[in-house]
Amino acid sequence: DPKLKVFTCNANRELAREIAEHIGVPLGNSEAIRFSDGECQIKLNESVRGCDVFVIQPTSAPVNEHLMELLVMVDALKRASAKSINVVIPYYGYARQDRKARARDPITAKLVANLIETAGAHRVITMDLHATQIQGFFDIPVDHLLGVPILGKYFSEKGLKDIVVVSPDHGGVTRARRLAERLEAPIAIIDKRRPEPNVAEVMNIVGNIEGKTAIIIDDIIDTAGTITLAASALIEAGAKDVYACCTHPVLSGPAIERIANSKISELVVTNSIPLTQDRMIDKIKVLSVAPIIGEAIIRVHEELSVSKLFD
Amino acid sequence: DPKLKVFTCNANRELAREIAEHIGVPLGNSEAIRFSDGECQIKLNESVRGCDVFVIQPTSAPVNEHLMELLVMVDALKRASAKSINVVIPYYGYARQDRKARARDPITAKLVANLIETAGAHRVITMDLHATQIQGFFDIPVDHLLGVPILGKYFSEKGLKDIVVVSPDHGGVTRARRLAERLEAPIAIIDKRRPEPNVAEVMNIVGNIEGKTAIIIDDIIDTAGTITLAASALIEAGAKDVYACCTHPVLSGPAIERIANSKISELVVTNSIPLTQDRMIDKIKVLSVAPIIGEAIIRVHEELSVSKLFD
Ligand SMILES: Nc1ncnc2c1ncn2[C@@H]1O[C@H](COP(=O)(O)O)[C@@H](O)[C@H]1O
Ligand SMILES: Nc1ncnc2c1ncn2[C@@H]1O[C@H](COP(=O)(O)O)[C@@H](O)[C@H]1O
Repeated sequence: DPKLKVFTCNANRELAREIAEHIGVPLGNSEAIRFSDGECQIKLNESVRGCDVFVIQPTSAPVNEHLMELLVMVDALKRASAKSINVVIPYYGYARQDRKARARDPITAKLVANLIETAGAHRVITMDLHATQIQGFFDIPVDHLLGVPILGKYFSEKGLKDIVVVSPDHGGVTRARRLAERLEAPIAIIDKRRPEPNVAEVMNIVGNIEGKTAIIIDDIIDTAGTITLAASALIEAGAKDVYACCTHPVLSGPAIERIANSKISELVVTNSIPLTQDRMIDKIKVLSVAPIIGEAIIRVHEELSVSKLFD
Repeated sequence: DPKLKVFTCNANRELAREIAEHIGVPLGNSEAIRFSDGECQIKLNESVRGCDVFVIQPTSAPVNEHLMELLVMVDALKRASAKSINVVIPYYGYARQDRKARARDPITAKLVANLIETAGAHRVITMDLHATQIQGFFDIPVDHLLGVPILGKYFSEKGLKDIVVVSPDHGGVTRARRLAERLEAPIAIIDKRRPEPNVAEVMNIVGNIEGKTAIIIDDIIDTAGTITLAASALIEAGAKDVYACCTHPVLSGPAIERIANSKISELVVTNSIPLTQDRMIDKIKVLSVAPIIGEAIIRVHEELSVSKLFD
């Protein structure tokens, strides 16, 4: 059987270590360092010849550094005769640049897909893509994992009563519905409207939240503007308590300050993106995606081994 | 005739401005900015439909930022229906990762070539590639410009007497010969040898430099270790004076301090890479590549227009 090996670069070494442990293999011996002028240097310190290699690297900030590390790593693995190169991108950077929102916009999410394929990846494992259409940007298999089971399990075990799951916008209703099903709860939707041009947006709440414990769910929380405003709107409209959760804690710019000062009792996130020390506040609870990614890797590796029988 | 437009990102706006001025066109209206989380945002603020577009962007430090800006810009131009996308990369980053120097090395110079083509570039204009083989890494036309004419003109006009042009290693002899021809001077070569393992390298000088004014030429000066040691060796061996020159002033890490404290009287470089204020010392003289790049762009644009006749 071709051997399964797990490598990583610098974006989330801790998660890679957890995943390797879950699978029961040592983390591959490699380095992603920099030359004096800032160019990436990737060193593979062990053979990968004939192996099924999995590279764990979310393309979180600094996104261009982490993306380039991943591409150079894939190039090195390809030239070192890995049998299959499977890139595990728990957080897919540039996912929000997925369409031409304005004239002459690039579609960077598609560019990144092309770059990853060009480097030599054979398969992608990712989580909660901002738009599921991004799977179609690839011509190689994409395994798309969901954060909802992890988040749902946490909230179930917490034993909250009289829950309503809230989608912060129309785009997130499917995700909210999935979580609501797991919690056997109803959903509500925040309907942002601008009554007239140049007048502030109004947040209308569609659904009954009066006296309930609201759980807002989103895929990405970036500057946390939407989610903290939604929390205020929910409390004002009579919600008893507000929790928030997401898979990808981007948390850039004013995010931490906004969350700290918000009506949100607890923000539940995953470790798809590592939280730097300065973004670790008491209100934030981090759940690990290592088990579900580890299981996905085991499944893919079995699949690759079985398909060999038909080669 | 399709219109010629010149755009740039952030790596060397000043050079782009000079080039546009040389050609006699305004610099295209675009922005290369960042979202809150550090992702590149490229805005094309004018139409490029049907145009021959030239994007000026050396992939100098921070190389991964500048490379990604270039790729996203090319993607945006492609989707905005530019007729041809010509990338002008005066300094080609990652050029030194051009072969497997060690087992399992990536060949990042080739990866970068593939990325640029994948993004949608139709042609590359570059200067003094670290290895001319890199032209073959592309499947699109590459125009390869040389810095020697600019450097040669400067030294000619300086009126130095009794010159010897020195190559700091065996790889640079062709370049040294080209400069020597322009200056009607002989050449010398520095022959680095390690007499025994774990013993410091010795610099032997092949050629006559006694009492002469030496001009060391290299393509890239990065940490400036080689060039400053070569300068000392030349002075010790009896050279009267030492000048140094290169096309690409990477000048990372200890470079500036080393040059300031070295035996080099003057270091002559080009603006293929912009010198930040903290790297601007009196000893360094900067020559502009804008005229030769401008001429190359005019020539390519004429060629593109002529070829249209045969379409
Ligand atoms: N990194 C980013 N940070 C903030 N906004 C972004 C980012 N990337 C793309 N966008 C914008 O987000 C919008 C798409 O987000 P959405 O409407 O939630 O799908 C588009 O207008 C994009 O220009
Ligand atoms: N950015 C860089 N800075 C310093 N050394 C590099 C860089 N990129 C590649 N190299 C190394 O430089 C050597 C090639 O340089 P050269 O022998 O001059 O062609 C190889 O050993 C590379 O690993």
